[in-house]
Amino acid sequence: MTSPLPHHSAAGTAAQRQEEEELHRQRAAIAALGHELRALVDAAVRTAATPSTLHRVASGAQRLTAQLTGRRRARAEVPEVDEFPGGVRMYSPVTGAGSPLAPPLHVTRIDRGAMGTCILGIAHEGPPGYGHGGISAMLLDELMGWACATAGMPGMTVSLQMRYHRPVPLESPLRVLAHVTDTDGRKVHVTGSIAAEEDLSTTLVTGEGVFVSPDPDHVRALFPGLRSAPR
Amino acid sequence: MTSPLPHHSAAGTAAQRQEEEELHRQRAAIAALGHELRALVDAAVRTAATPSTLHRVASGAQRLTAQLTGRRRARAEVPEVDEFPGGVRMYSPVTGAGSPLAPPLHVTRIDRGAMGTCILGIAHEGPPGYGHGGISAMLLDELMGWACATAGMPGMTVSLQMRYHRPVPLESPLRVLAHVTDTDGRKVHVTGSIAAEEDLSTTLVTGEGVFVSPDPDHVRALFPGLRSAPR
Repeated sequence: MTSPLPHHSAAGTAAQRQEEEELHRQRAAIAALGHELRALVDAAVRTAATPSTLHRVASGAQRLTAQLTGRRRARAEVPEVDEFPGGVRMYSPVTGAGSPLAPPLHVTRIDRGAMGTCILGIAHEGPPGYGHGGISAMLLDELMGWACATAGMPGMTVSLQMRYHRPVPLESPLRVLAHVTDTDGRKVHVTGSIAAEEDLSTTLVTGEGVFVSPDPDHVRALFPGLRSAPR
Repeated sequence: MTSPLPHHSAAGTAAQRQEEEELHRQRAAIAALGHELRALVDAAVRTAATPSTLHRVASGAQRLTAQLTGRRRARAEVPEVDEFPGGVRMYSPVTGAGSPLAPPLHVTRIDRGAMGTCILGIAHEGPPGYGHGGISAMLLDELMGWACATAGMPGMTVSLQMRYHRPVPLESPLRVLAHVTDTDGRKVHVTGSIAAEEDLSTTLVTGEGVFVSPDPDHVRALFPGLRSAPR
């Protein structure tokens, strides 16, 4: 009798590969819809179309919504396509490829920190022609969270001090940076900044954040929708 | 010969009334589209539909975008339906009835301040089940701006100190408050808070902001898209 192990092992690998391919297909489809919805959002906030056109498009949107039936996740449920904490969040309003709200911010981990790049659209407008101050806070808060995770202490924001030096341009590549500067028990201190790619020496916005990295039991209590223990 | 004045005056009033009705129709259509797009955004971020459904909806969204042709406003142009500064912003990512990103926050002016109410959706999620810290910053930054305007000093954010005491629930009515506490030349100090309507005694998030109210010449230089002098 031959050992069943190699066979099972091969089957396990094939199943795993199939699961990975399915996850990839699902994420690609979510990102494709996110992309088209971001384009639709942009068109909707900058058009000067007539009321009849706007109502016609509104009816079309209603028909699209009706197609997204079937299983829907509950409020606190982590989507099956996500890695939480410390990984891909497909629907994050800041980084999510599937979020119509997100610029989205593309994040790269760096030593004890994170770098993000994005372009804000007219949908993110605060003062005419510039980004909303709250959007800058979202970018920094999010990237500081990534910096904490990179430093091995994924955490939640306790405080965030934002300083607005110059307005943030729309439709222009931005670079966001965040670095962990200090840790104190479960507390993590982080600094961050936003600049335009075309003039990185001129800082537009700076932030200082204090995050707290909860212990795993606390994380499970806070987020009952987690499918597995945080890594 | 009778004076043409009464006739002209009546014609002026009729033209004015027609213009107001047109503005009302345009705003209602913008709000209707905003409403349907917010529903579509919500459905898109909570569905677990198959890739083929997601791709079909993405194609549908692309067709809707193609219908929003014709005149589009330029980046720094204030929309004709808006009152800026200090009034209606139809596409504001926080208060705009026409913004698919906005909760939207409904603002009421109060003595030297402003009160806002809204419900965050899953699209605004940060930690699973709770609002993103940056969304709270958007709510407070925006409402503090309204508080400055109510106190007669519409301004732009210089700094914003956010403190996160407890997570902010999704899909639950929230109350946001902002008050001007002090002015110092063109500088305005504002405090703000977020609480759940069902437990107003428990503050979830607090903020302290410093705003600066620019002089009218500075406003015109910053916002060349303004159609008239700020009021």
